[in-house]
Amino acid sequence: MKTAEQEDSERIADLVLANRILADQGVVDGFGHVSVRSARNPKHYFIARSRAPALVTADDIMEYDLDDQPIDSRGRTPYLERFIHSEIYKVRPDVQSVIHGHSPAVIPFGASDVPLRPISHMAGFLVREVPVFEIRATGGNETDLLIRNKALGAALAQKLGNATVVLMRGHGDTVVGQSIKTAVFHAIYTELNARMEAEALRLGGKITFLNEIEAAKIGEQFDKLVDRPWEIWKIQALSHAQPAPGP
Amino acid sequence: MKTAEQEDSERIADLVLANRILADQGVVDGFGHVSVRSARNPKHYFIARSRAPALVTADDIMEYDLDDQPIDSRGRTPYLERFIHSEIYKVRPDVQSVIHGHSPAVIPFGASDVPLRPISHMAGFLVREVPVFEIRATGGNETDLLIRNKALGAALAQKLGNATVVLMRGHGDTVVGQSIKTAVFHAIYTELNARMEAEALRLGGKITFLNEIEAAKIGEQFDKLVDRPWEIWKIQALSHAQPAPGP
Amino acid sequence: MKTAEQEDSERIADLVLANRILADQGVVDGFGHVSVRSARNPKHYFIARSRAPALVTADDIMEYDLDDQPIDSRGRTPYLERFIHSEIYKVRPDVQSVIHGHSPAVIPFGASDVPLRPISHMAGFLVREVPVFEIRATGGNETDLLIRNKALGAALAQKLGNATVVLMRGHGDTVVGQSIKTAVFHAIYTELNARMEAEALRLGGKITFLNEIEAAKIGEQFDKLVDRPWEIWKIQALSHAQPAPGP
Amino acid sequence: MKTAEQEDSERIADLVLANRILADQGVVDGFGHVSVRSARNPKHYFIARSRAPALVTADDIMEYDLDDQPIDSRGRTPYLERFIHSEIYKVRPDVQSVIHGHSPAVIPFGASDVPLRPISHMAGFLVREVPVFEIRATGGNETDLLIRNKALGAALAQKLGNATVVLMRGHGDTVVGQSIKTAVFHAIYTELNARMEAEALRLGGKITFLNEIEAAKIGEQFDKLVDRPWEIWKIQALSHAQPAPGP
Repeated sequence: MKTAEQEDSERIADLVLANRILADQGVVDGFGHVSVRSARNPKHYFIARSRAPALVTADDIMEYDLDDQPIDSRGRTPYLERFIHSEIYKVRPDVQSVIHGHSPAVIPFGASDVPLRPISHMAGFLVREVPVFEIRATGGNETDLLIRNKALGAALAQKLGNATVVLMRGHGDTVVGQSIKTAVFHAIYTELNARMEAEALRLGGKITFLNEIEAAKIGEQFDKLVDRPWEIWKIQALSHAQPAPGP
Repeated sequence: MKTAEQEDSERIADLVLANRILADQGVVDGFGHVSVRSARNPKHYFIARSRAPALVTADDIMEYDLDDQPIDSRGRTPYLERFIHSEIYKVRPDVQSVIHGHSPAVIPFGASDVPLRPISHMAGFLVREVPVFEIRATGGNETDLLIRNKALGAALAQKLGNATVVLMRGHGDTVVGQSIKTAVFHAIYTELNARMEAEALRLGGKITFLNEIEAAKIGEQFDKLVDRPWEIWKIQALSHAQPAPGP
Repeated sequence: MKTAEQEDSERIADLVLANRILADQGVVDGFGHVSVRSARNPKHYFIARSRAPALVTADDIMEYDLDDQPIDSRGRTPYLERFIHSEIYKVRPDVQSVIHGHSPAVIPFGASDVPLRPISHMAGFLVREVPVFEIRATGGNETDLLIRNKALGAALAQKLGNATVVLMRGHGDTVVGQSIKTAVFHAIYTELNARMEAEALRLGGKITFLNEIEAAKIGEQFDKLVDRPWEIWKIQALSHAQPAPGP
Repeated sequence: MKTAEQEDSERIADLVLANRILADQGVVDGFGHVSVRSARNPKHYFIARSRAPALVTADDIMEYDLDDQPIDSRGRTPYLERFIHSEIYKVRPDVQSVIHGHSPAVIPFGASDVPLRPISHMAGFLVREVPVFEIRATGGNETDLLIRNKALGAALAQKLGNATVVLMRGHGDTVVGQSIKTAVFHAIYTELNARMEAEALRLGGKITFLNEIEAAKIGEQFDKLVDRPWEIWKIQALSHAQPAPGP
């Protein structure tokens, strides 16, 4: 049987891959971050130092407690918005991985009052309308939109509730999963579903969305099939990986 | 003269290429599948094991009878929705190849009541309005949208009728051809036609679609010209192919 | 001084590059063709045999007279629609190069009654509304949309008139230039202008297009600057070129 | 401490990279240019000779005074529109770098009366409505749209005012920054914000843009974080760089 230490080694390896895959699939650009809960200590999580996801390596991965204190910082700069991760891990024991990014097709839905809803069965995990976090409700009208502290992180986690995705007005989205692979799957297909819903809306006709039962059933089904796309995403991300230029 | 065995060898080689081409052209992603009827036994068909199309090799190709039983499974996992293929082969003796995928520009038309129609002569094979399969009509309101059994496969085949493409609400599309190359051509240009029709609709003016005679005539013409794009699609797919990472 | 024979050698080299560039820039796919008038004999023109433009080499280039008879066919298959080229060279002595393709953002304008107009100064050569060729006016309602004979070619050339671009309903467009480089420039920026006009239209506000004097002046200016983008298009096309797979 | 000469060497190296990055990110194509003010002599600036940005090397960089006279031309052809740069440097001492290009998603906003506004926090530097330069107001109705002289450059600089971006009707945009990296950041996220605003508009609902305080605060924040995306943009641009074909 796998020890918790072995499990954490695998999670860290997958976390590096997740950074590369999310960048390669266009869900994150120079910004955005992904974390995974520790198996050894479920009140700790792993996340990269402040760096573009496409460049993250195992050496960049840091361990934090749920007060967002680094266990062994070694001078590495943390992400400013790490509170997104800790506050969700606190209230969602089912969640093992959290992704925050600026998913380009999703941001327009966060700024609009038109809801993001599941139009493709690949995004059944959306189930129905995706909640939108308006930072003005908690932080007032004069924030810089960032989740800079635990109070804002807690408010975001509350808005997420039991859902899989929460949109952040003027900012991006946060996506969760019961594993790194599942969270990556959710982040990628949230982006694709947003594109498809926008396309369907502009056709100008009546749209049939997935109903709640359809969405829930197919969402569970795909959560079991994440290894299939992960295999190709991983190969593509590694083949596109850019070595740092020499000295 | 070629024997049926030689013909089947060629079909299997083309089937592997078709998987790679459809992925390279963005018609399938980590999911989707393509099959070809056996020349030796027209009541059998070939299709990959459950795997991302971009990674399919000859070793992944399995043979099935029209009851969807594998001839020599060797422990390989089948696609859950293989019934799409068998049920169409049963009722469409002219069809030699079937493609199912989640063609991104096509899905919005499957969810909308705005019909997909031929606006580009490359997609004359659409002839006129493309039928839409609503799974609720056969499976009720509580399915997971997948074609999980022969009843659903038969209903889909019936909705396809004599057409070349059938849209599947909230899911994707299924495309047929009198050869693998023709089916691939149909799948790729269905996607392109969907993009162009959506663009034309948003211009806001009056649109002139192909009439039925124009569509039928040019559709037949292009069915004879599939080798020209196949040559470049094949070269591109092979040059983009990603080797699996080493051990 | 350069002889006409040397000039023709250079034109053929540029013609091969033009095929590669147009494919690399997405203006042609597996179909489409580009020709150049002969300097030695202005009643002859050069064009590839029937082949995907991305794969055209010097060996594929054939010479035709304006009756579309090949000078030395060597068994190579001609493009079905070569009449587009000959009929334009007949009536437009200023034109040295003709491009026909299925430019994806342009086709929606050919199918819509919303005119394609210059919104970007890069496309000043459009000057004002681009003419649309409706094959039904000449060929009736039962064609296959192709320019299959000299009568249809002549009607298309007449619709082009003194313009630089003519749209072909349900089919594509044809673009001309006073050199290969200029024609390629025109084809690429016609596609980009179509995308930008479609985007501007969907913003929903009032649009200011180039007026005729602005368009004519900047069009002439860019006709002198085609070497600048040609240099980078050429390098990109050659670096993306795919060798044919070995035997 | 760094001398002004050392600082200028670094600025020239970054200027070459900026050319490559802007081309790689699709903000400039065969045209467009970027400049940096000299540290040694703030009344001089550096900019490439007339060449496609993707191909610019250190040998292409020229030095100009604010009368747009080259210091050591060595026969290199200047950009026709260098007046954009000098006139902005004259009236904006805070500006160290200027970018002019034909950013494809931005041009539709320049041609429309729908304002470009910050919808994504990445583009907080837009603060509120982006000014639009209508050349007809200064140059009349018969220009070729180019900034061909100092009078037009001065009018453009005046329209820019204290903003970060000015749109140019029918032409493109001009973007400034307090460093090369910041200007590149501004140019790239202006393009992305334009895409997202256009997408949000087409959803058809009510949109919440960043208010002025949110925009100003997050704009300042990201100006401090430009090294993070610059690292990955640089690696990508260098890895996609195309060597010139051999002799």
